[in-house]
Amino acid sequence: MTEGQVSPPLAQRARALRSSVIRDILKLTQRPGMISLAGGLPAPDTFPLELLRAGFDRVLTEHGRAALQYSTTEGHPPLREWIAARETARGIPTRADEVLIVSGSQQALDLIAKALVEPGAPVLVEAPTYLGALQAFSLFAPTWRMVPTDDGGLMPDALTTDLTQSARFLYAMPNFQNPSGRTLTHERRSALAERARRHDFWIIEDDPYGELWYEAVPPPSLRAFACERVIRMGSFSKVLAPGLRLGYVIAPEPVIATLARLKQATDLHTATVTQMAAYDVLAGGHLDTLLPLTRRRYAQQCAALLDALDQFFAGRGHWTRPAGGMFVWVELAATVDATALLAQAVKRQVAFVPGAAFYPLGARANTLRLSFVTVAAEQLHVGIERLARCLDEPVAHAATHSETDPKVDAANGAAAASASPRNDDASRAPAANR
Amino acid sequence: MTEGQVSPPLAQRARALRSSVIRDILKLTQRPGMISLAGGLPAPDTFPLELLRAGFDRVLTEHGRAALQYSTTEGHPPLREWIAARETARGIPTRADEVLIVSGSQQALDLIAKALVEPGAPVLVEAPTYLGALQAFSLFAPTWRMVPTDDGGLMPDALTTDLTQSARFLYAMPNFQNPSGRTLTHERRSALAERARRHDFWIIEDDPYGELWYEAVPPPSLRAFACERVIRMGSFSKVLAPGLRLGYVIAPEPVIATLARLKQATDLHTATVTQMAAYDVLAGGHLDTLLPLTRRRYAQQCAALLDALDQFFAGRGHWTRPAGGMFVWVELAATVDATALLAQAVKRQVAFVPGAAFYPLGARANTLRLSFVTVAAEQLHVGIERLARCLDEPVAHAATHSETDPKVDAANGAAAASASPRNDDASRAPAANR
Repeated sequence: MTEGQVSPPLAQRARALRSSVIRDILKLTQRPGMISLAGGLPAPDTFPLELLRAGFDRVLTEHGRAALQYSTTEGHPPLREWIAARETARGIPTRADEVLIVSGSQQALDLIAKALVEPGAPVLVEAPTYLGALQAFSLFAPTWRMVPTDDGGLMPDALTTDLTQSARFLYAMPNFQNPSGRTLTHERRSALAERARRHDFWIIEDDPYGELWYEAVPPPSLRAFACERVIRMGSFSKVLAPGLRLGYVIAPEPVIATLARLKQATDLHTATVTQMAAYDVLAGGHLDTLLPLTRRRYAQQCAALLDALDQFFAGRGHWTRPAGGMFVWVELAATVDATALLAQAVKRQVAFVPGAAFYPLGARANTLRLSFVTVAAEQLHVGIERLARCLDEPVAHAATHSETDPKVDAANGAAAASASPRNDDASRAPAANR
Repeated sequence: MTEGQVSPPLAQRARALRSSVIRDILKLTQRPGMISLAGGLPAPDTFPLELLRAGFDRVLTEHGRAALQYSTTEGHPPLREWIAARETARGIPTRADEVLIVSGSQQALDLIAKALVEPGAPVLVEAPTYLGALQAFSLFAPTWRMVPTDDGGLMPDALTTDLTQSARFLYAMPNFQNPSGRTLTHERRSALAERARRHDFWIIEDDPYGELWYEAVPPPSLRAFACERVIRMGSFSKVLAPGLRLGYVIAPEPVIATLARLKQATDLHTATVTQMAAYDVLAGGHLDTLLPLTRRRYAQQCAALLDALDQFFAGRGHWTRPAGGMFVWVELAATVDATALLAQAVKRQVAFVPGAAFYPLGARANTLRLSFVTVAAEQLHVGIERLARCLDEPVAHAATHSETDPKVDAANGAAAASASPRNDDASRAPAANR
């Protein structure tokens, strides 16, 4: 009997979700004057505000109370049809019953983890990989195996019998990856599919940014190479608006049926009215008008950031040159500790996300993620100049966080959560994982 | 290497989610002419359609793109404030940071399971209990312990040292319970709180129907008796509209912080625009106008069903007389098998949910749940008359499903899922758990 206790005993998975060491630093990024390259939010002026306003109005006028009632777990049938038709039009024949609507693609990660992650069993991820996936999967306590990457994306040759032994799936973001901005080459997609067949593992293809290419369409979806063993995740957060919380999964029908059963136990179904309103905008063909504007805008923002890096970071490290998306990845001299650098940067009114959070183990402390789509071009310039000045200060090289810290956390399956700058921070600030 | 496989190997928790034996029968309830007392949907003419249409329009006009952007994991701050203020006005002082907005209260069950359910550890539930809770908790493989109930709700005297040993929490629905329609008496609420303190377990109070009283307000929330160890779940599905998928949790702030971290890994946050639109309607004070109409309507529907039972079921069994909510629970002669009865009933164009699904173990096969709020009064009369006729047929007494079947499932933590009529069925029909 414990009077006045304020929390019940937590399950192991919840105890492992500890506070982030850099949470307090990133909280400061909300201050006025701060140039934050730390966020992951899309630019709000790309949202089709008027179209969605008209869509909600039309749906509630035309569908009335059906738009407000419980609906099927798999999702609004016309929206599933629309997604299947778009996929088919890209050359990958897809039926509506191979599509599941989810409450944002973070939910797809939760459902896939529930379906596939057995405690202690290995999961293959890119190094670095998307933080939200590490958080979702970590709750189900996998053993992490990292697949090395270079500027062409993950390296299929590394997927040996040893590395893939007992792994049920590999999780990858082949287009304009979060955090690295890298794109998996066409050849490597084909080689990855071949390795997946040879070593009998499935592929989770997470593709929230694929529509945000700058000059050229990226190589085909991994479904084009291994349709029978790919679970593809898509999102409307970057092409319509994230506040709708709408994403989808495309996979063989038995997989969709399993995920739907799990979704029913998780949240019954995704909001009826938001699905209908999104479908209203999509069916109107507005994506074809909206996307070219978003692509051009993001391309300009990326170019501005790369210009600033070329000007102020020359000789200080290596960075990616994305062909789409929202992120640039910077690797600095091996002596730099990006968490220590962040503490300095915040004093100079500029922020970013230290790269260590994106590794489940073996984190490279000298890396960082820069987000550029919500910051004006001249501010990107000022921000990178400030950051370069921090690098000239000795404190940025004080290795207060050793490279092995995250390994300790990874051992109990909690690396993502404990290393995450969004973990607690998102409790206070917009949830900007994506 | 397995060419052409259509599903990856599933984790144990997902393999346990099997199809329901009565799914195929309940699918037939969509046929024209069927009088379905099987659903759990609220009556759509209680939804404030025009108010919500105006709310979405106003929110998108006044808040613009902020209504479509990522937002905080804990939820829209004014909505949290409104919920805290309403709770405080009822005499239980509550702060906004003790409130978490969730994507329908099914998600609260998922998050609470993630936070508290350790595989194999005991969880206390009422017998019978809410099916959606069995589904959500089952994924995390607890051991079930059932608390006996009578028409006054769960029996606190049964919460002995033996029964509560190692249990971290008890899950209960004290007002107009789904499936039984029963309400926990004031005296028992007090005794339950005393037992919770004595044996050091927490209480999950699920209260989606509390506002739907007919004649008198139910006894105070369990928070009034044991605020320091109650996690209270609420929902807007029955007072606004379920298609919004909006619910909430009220608990001590450290519990809210844990659930918010888990929610971030689960779906980042609940849709921004639906939270804002719901707040628009709630802040306008419309609940005070809407609820009396819903209460009166549901009271009339319940009275019509009870009249029909009095007329056609006299001498055939016992049923509850709810003081609110949407469900009546019927216990028939011990020889009746409600699943066999359902097969007969569907032939006569009437449907219900067999009660076995609501027990994690030791299911009573002679029970059934009747839902009455979406069926016209004269149809309730016809439906019960048809059901009574089925009871006169010998087949309803053929025990094709023994009482011990669910026990076998419960042993592998899958009772709810495998015994659930909504499990697969909801993949095709509206998700009518609530």
